[in-house]
Amino acid sequence: MNWKTVLTVYVKTIVESLYQAGVRDAVISPGSRSTPLAYLFAEHPDIQTHVVIDERSAAFFAMGMAKKSSHPVVLLCTSGSAAANYYPAIVEAKYARVPLIALTADRPHELREVGAPQAIDQTHLYGKHVKWFVDLPQPSNQSNTISYLRQTCYKAFDLSQQFPKGPVHLNVPLPEPLIPELPVEFSKDQSRNSSGIGRTFPTSSMVRELSSLLNSNQNGLIIVGEIADEKAADWIVDLSETYQLPILADPLSQLRSNGDSPIQTLIDAYDTFLRFKEVQNEVRPDFVIRFGSMPVSKFLCQFMEELESIRFIVIDEGGHRDPIHKATDTWAVNESLLIKEVLQDRPTPQKPGKWAKKWLHYNQQTRMLIEEKSPLLKWNEGKAVHTILNYLPDQSLLYVGNSMPIRDVDTFLSKQPKRVHVLANRGTNGIDGVVSSALGASAKNTSNYLLIGDLSFYHDLNGLLISQMEGIDITIFVLNNNGGGIFSFLPQSNEPYHFEKLFGTPANLTFEHAVQMYKGFYTKVINEAELEEALKSLYTKQGLKVVEIMTNREENVVIHRELWNFVSREMMGNE
Amino acid sequence: MNWKTVLTVYVKTIVESLYQAGVRDAVISPGSRSTPLAYLFAEHPDIQTHVVIDERSAAFFAMGMAKKSSHPVVLLCTSGSAAANYYPAIVEAKYARVPLIALTADRPHELREVGAPQAIDQTHLYGKHVKWFVDLPQPSNQSNTISYLRQTCYKAFDLSQQFPKGPVHLNVPLPEPLIPELPVEFSKDQSRNSSGIGRTFPTSSMVRELSSLLNSNQNGLIIVGEIADEKAADWIVDLSETYQLPILADPLSQLRSNGDSPIQTLIDAYDTFLRFKEVQNEVRPDFVIRFGSMPVSKFLCQFMEELESIRFIVIDEGGHRDPIHKATDTWAVNESLLIKEVLQDRPTPQKPGKWAKKWLHYNQQTRMLIEEKSPLLKWNEGKAVHTILNYLPDQSLLYVGNSMPIRDVDTFLSKQPKRVHVLANRGTNGIDGVVSSALGASAKNTSNYLLIGDLSFYHDLNGLLISQMEGIDITIFVLNNNGGGIFSFLPQSNEPYHFEKLFGTPANLTFEHAVQMYKGFYTKVINEAELEEALKSLYTKQGLKVVEIMTNREENVVIHRELWNFVSREMMGNE
Repeated sequence: MNWKTVLTVYVKTIVESLYQAGVRDAVISPGSRSTPLAYLFAEHPDIQTHVVIDERSAAFFAMGMAKKSSHPVVLLCTSGSAAANYYPAIVEAKYARVPLIALTADRPHELREVGAPQAIDQTHLYGKHVKWFVDLPQPSNQSNTISYLRQTCYKAFDLSQQFPKGPVHLNVPLPEPLIPELPVEFSKDQSRNSSGIGRTFPTSSMVRELSSLLNSNQNGLIIVGEIADEKAADWIVDLSETYQLPILADPLSQLRSNGDSPIQTLIDAYDTFLRFKEVQNEVRPDFVIRFGSMPVSKFLCQFMEELESIRFIVIDEGGHRDPIHKATDTWAVNESLLIKEVLQDRPTPQKPGKWAKKWLHYNQQTRMLIEEKSPLLKWNEGKAVHTILNYLPDQSLLYVGNSMPIRDVDTFLSKQPKRVHVLANRGTNGIDGVVSSALGASAKNTSNYLLIGDLSFYHDLNGLLISQMEGIDITIFVLNNNGGGIFSFLPQSNEPYHFEKLFGTPANLTFEHAVQMYKGFYTKVINEAELEEALKSLYTKQGLKVVEIMTNREENVVIHRELWNFVSREMMGNE
Repeated sequence: MNWKTVLTVYVKTIVESLYQAGVRDAVISPGSRSTPLAYLFAEHPDIQTHVVIDERSAAFFAMGMAKKSSHPVVLLCTSGSAAANYYPAIVEAKYARVPLIALTADRPHELREVGAPQAIDQTHLYGKHVKWFVDLPQPSNQSNTISYLRQTCYKAFDLSQQFPKGPVHLNVPLPEPLIPELPVEFSKDQSRNSSGIGRTFPTSSMVRELSSLLNSNQNGLIIVGEIADEKAADWIVDLSETYQLPILADPLSQLRSNGDSPIQTLIDAYDTFLRFKEVQNEVRPDFVIRFGSMPVSKFLCQFMEELESIRFIVIDEGGHRDPIHKATDTWAVNESLLIKEVLQDRPTPQKPGKWAKKWLHYNQQTRMLIEEKSPLLKWNEGKAVHTILNYLPDQSLLYVGNSMPIRDVDTFLSKQPKRVHVLANRGTNGIDGVVSSALGASAKNTSNYLLIGDLSFYHDLNGLLISQMEGIDITIFVLNNNGGGIFSFLPQSNEPYHFEKLFGTPANLTFEHAVQMYKGFYTKVINEAELEEALKSLYTKQGLKVVEIMTNREENVVIHRELWNFVSREMMGNE
């Protein structure tokens, strides 16, 4: 067999096996060393290839796509620092539990660590942040190699899918010449023999423990963050309504915006009313059942942290997440299966008791007071977010940037009849890669929105090119307060030293030029009326639309505090 | 001692010790967890702080600064994915042997791997790509901790400076609250007790071996890449002139543009004439002495690779770099010290013999033919580079992008009387981070230029913000051929499949908007006359200046080949 055939069989096996395992999308960054793999992905009739030039954006784009679909996406880049640019998204994927398969082309072993150009040590490049690393053998025509490749690709796919989901890394050493035989005929055999990942069944003691706790007539609380198992949310609501346990639902739990009819026991305003010690003292539970990731709300976290000597069960199929060290029980088990077992005997649903009513009272009051006060407040970011949340059409995707936007969404997103899929990069809470992540999640979706701060938008401006090259329709709301707005909410804002230089970092950026560069539609708004106007005009536009919302960093803090103070005053007065 | 005092003493010790060790610059990205360190760097009267928002750019900026000065620069960022963004520049720094000290703020141990926000496993984050990693202890008031911190900072500085120079990583766990006592009074004691890195002296057998080879009257060749020891270049010239050995000087050796009088034995056009087998056959050496990094020229590398059974000595203080596996001897020794020993007895300089004359003949011929043909060629990138090289003022800094620009500089940079410091990211040859690297090298320099391709410029557009925030004067020449120009020189350009999508990647970008966004001065040129006009007008501008040079990818290839064919034809005919 000549070299070209050997090379072709080798890379074809990789691409075909990944397809058979289930891969349908590959995000490719241009490069020389990855040439044969890039060709074969492009040749495959049923794998969609997406070319993204900046590898950092490429990886976040793949991450967003995999996050939205819960399905592994392939990344491919050339050797050298290109692969290092994947790192931020790899890390996010690990902690957000998103399946990714990173393929990095490499120089063959003979060119490693000997001063060769564009060659770095790519073995274990992502360290502890991938679930599996394999340095593949060089292309050869041994049948053993081919079987091994197939097995390894299947395993990589499966491992990325196994709970907790996450990234895996295959390093592919490719000697020159790098041109395969083209065109390529792929096997008609579309799938491997059946394979899959089992779910984690509860033990009988888990079921017993939980049932007995639920039937103990104590005051319990359910807290729900982001959960990998989409079906879990329905089960949790069922559990909550059956036992009349309030559900504190994080925006990423999707419960606030799942489009279903009202959830009797849903609490969505806790981030506001748990700021007040008086309320906290009224609503302390006897036990807590927490599902999924930690909620966004800092005040909820502090509230949980201060609970002493209570039963605190963390149920999370992907395993231990409990930064407040409160869990008395940690169960790595499929949430749906556990609740299904517990509800098997269909206990008669309880009527709302004093406990649930108390929570619902504070929740309703808070929502009412926010709605009452908001229109009277001066223009600020909270108001803009409030307006945008009201505007979002049914069946939308809303990607939310970190730092202030996700917090404002937590404050203003109340349970509503329309379905809005809310996503955010909460694995590492970074401000990096958010534009690309949102575009990845939007790639196969209509009605896409991103809400993001100015520093985060700047950080991933390169991502905008993807919307143009991939023809993705998205509306981006940029909250521009000229710098790091969150720092004005932190203690350093009270210090006279170096604040603007180190934290405020006013870069005096506006983004009209950036949007024009990427041929998008741009509007700048400086008040409520202009925002409403802009929202109306967006319906008719296609492609990339950016609404830059100018606000004032200092005023944002003052007005947020004014709102909370108002709620506090009114609520305590009413008691 | 209260917490605020403990925290302050802890971070002050770190900053003060790094200063005492020799740190004078810190590149800081805004973040919360790094707050106390950021404050203390800003407080230090003799450390210059540079705030760069995008951590990827920040790290390349620090890398460029450290590369230019050969002096360690500190990087500081917050916890989480921020630190992962340093990776591409860390990898470049490792392979380019540039000293960096990365400080990553971390959550305290209690918040690691327990699902805490913005917390990732930062231990060994950069794997094998840093020379040293230390996870510091948490702040405490034990005197032992303070002594240990000081020792560790000194050691980190020294290790980054030891050959081969490179990056080190200190991870700093910081519990809340994060505000230190301000202002801070730093110790008057400005420096630690004397400390330093010794040089690597040659063994007597190295001196003996080299002397005997040089005096053997065989035909020897000296090849020089980038060398860490700045003084080495002079010694190598001395060696070459004494023994009449041709020096093949890479653009990064600085020998072509060191501002000195002509070097009798310098060969700077080998990348062109070593393309021709006939010439190769005429100039094969009996031995080779290679210094520093591998040269840029692919044809020189191939020429070396085909040399059989000759003595091939690689002299490189930082150790083994020999991707062609040709070295018969590899000496990790200080280049200057070795040559000084060899020339100690001051052998009488030889007269140019047949061997040196033959090399010089091809070199002069090639330069003459290039100069003769160039004006007759159609507009293309080579011509633009040629014009720019002629234009550069004395005492300039020229940062060169990878892919085609560095190759064109190799072709067109001939020995000249002006001093132009030529730098490039040749550790990993990436197209990432080049704008920021160039700005780092330019930060304390006047007369700064960057020559870069469109994809590479796009990749690090975020870097442009640094020129604005730091007030750096730079002229950037963007060679815009709408995509990956280098691929048109590679075999895939002959394949009919997927070329534009996978390799050409025409993003149809032009950069006027980007430059305006960062308040720079922009000119677009589409031919020689416009380029000359633009060059004239640049003298009067300050700040960021971008000249976008529009060329055609396909024509670039055709015209480059036309030039080489012309030289080949004329040269072979002349023989």
